[in-house]
Amino acid sequence: MKISKYKNEFDYSYTLGLTLTIELLKRKPRECLQIYFHPSYIESDSSKIINTLINKYNIPFETNLKIFNILSQKENCFVIGIFNKYFSEIDSSNHIVLVNPANSGNLGTIIRSALGFGIKNIAIIKPGVDIFDPKTIRSSMGALFNISFEYFSSFEDYYNKFSNNNIYPFMLQAKNNLSNQKFIEPYSLVFGNEATGLDNKYLKYQSVIIPHSKDIDSLNLPIAVSIACYEATKNKWNK
Amino acid sequence: MKISKYKNEFDYSYTLGLTLTIELLKRKPRECLQIYFHPSYIESDSSKIINTLINKYNIPFETNLKIFNILSQKENCFVIGIFNKYFSEIDSSNHIVLVNPANSGNLGTIIRSALGFGIKNIAIIKPGVDIFDPKTIRSSMGALFNISFEYFSSFEDYYNKFSNNNIYPFMLQAKNNLSNQKFIEPYSLVFGNEATGLDNKYLKYQSVIIPHSKDIDSLNLPIAVSIACYEATKNKWNK
Repeated sequence: MKISKYKNEFDYSYTLGLTLTIELLKRKPRECLQIYFHPSYIESDSSKIINTLINKYNIPFETNLKIFNILSQKENCFVIGIFNKYFSEIDSSNHIVLVNPANSGNLGTIIRSALGFGIKNIAIIKPGVDIFDPKTIRSSMGALFNISFEYFSSFEDYYNKFSNNNIYPFMLQAKNNLSNQKFIEPYSLVFGNEATGLDNKYLKYQSVIIPHSKDIDSLNLPIAVSIACYEATKNKWNK
Repeated sequence: MKISKYKNEFDYSYTLGLTLTIELLKRKPRECLQIYFHPSYIESDSSKIINTLINKYNIPFETNLKIFNILSQKENCFVIGIFNKYFSEIDSSNHIVLVNPANSGNLGTIIRSALGFGIKNIAIIKPGVDIFDPKTIRSSMGALFNISFEYFSSFEDYYNKFSNNNIYPFMLQAKNNLSNQKFIEPYSLVFGNEATGLDNKYLKYQSVIIPHSKDIDSLNLPIAVSIACYEATKNKWNK
């Protein structure tokens, strides 16, 4: 296998770092093709975990400096995993729907928060950033391997498949204040692109605004999604 | 003035981009020393704003490619501002207190959210990242110029100065669930370092937890701060 910097068209991707590689081996061991260790890798407490998983699933591994020079400039990256991109689809419970997300790091941060609040289905309306980009995996802290996702050609395609879901688009033009909003399950929390948000056609659903001062144009996208997830799910943590 | 990449010890810093430079000129015009335009800079709607501000405050400006090669690798950076780092101190209203924040981008994102929710005082307990780092300014989207901040040698120093504030440390070891917590003004929302959080000595205050699933170790710091700000301030948006 010739290793080169990740490209969207590859049918495999990389976990760059020990924690991410452990998450890969815990959640998607059958997809893992190979593990590389940096020559300066030093065994630590986490090494027991990774060694056990490598043995359990019989994953090939080797020490190899060149791979690190090609794939990672990070000083703290001593383990790399290679894995097959796998098929995933979402189920009919609660969803986060991202319309045309453009930033890999943001997508990863959103995945981490979504998992944190127990919303484990992410729908992405195309065009949208590649969920298997190593930058997304890194900012998700490996949470990617613990959620389901699915890409759709349009919001209409998504809605045709999940017409039972209650649609809550988050937009600056909305009138319902988040803190007064009730979310009826199964719900879909819908967010627009980082720069452009959602257009007015989404006002026909139960649109919601996270009110903020006029001193900023908008909240950062992962922050808006996380606040929405927090508010939609907070009652379940009070039991 | 010889221009080189930003260092913490400089007594000046940079705004790398049009939007940030406009925020600088709007909020801190007296601190602005010089504006540089990229040779490929094209006038747009925002140019009227920047031209008006440059004229109003009589700021020196020039077109200069070299500066951009030194200071910015971003493709979309066509305007750079240079400004004096200025003195700032916080007042006795509500605060966000960051204990040993380590990541410049995170600090900027926190500042943007804080301003968004109307908490305009940020205290930083040293050691902590440099608030004037161009990376912080960029991720704050210029919100830095619209808030007050102050560094303290220790949390005790901070508390001695603001002993009237009600202290709410956010920590995984806490028992009070955020969604049941009342925040009595003036309040201080206190957060630990990205990797280590807050230690147990903060449990003597009214400590708060943002509950989340066991599938993640913790929320990303700017997300936790933003959710806390949202919850603490949400009633004021309902009037």
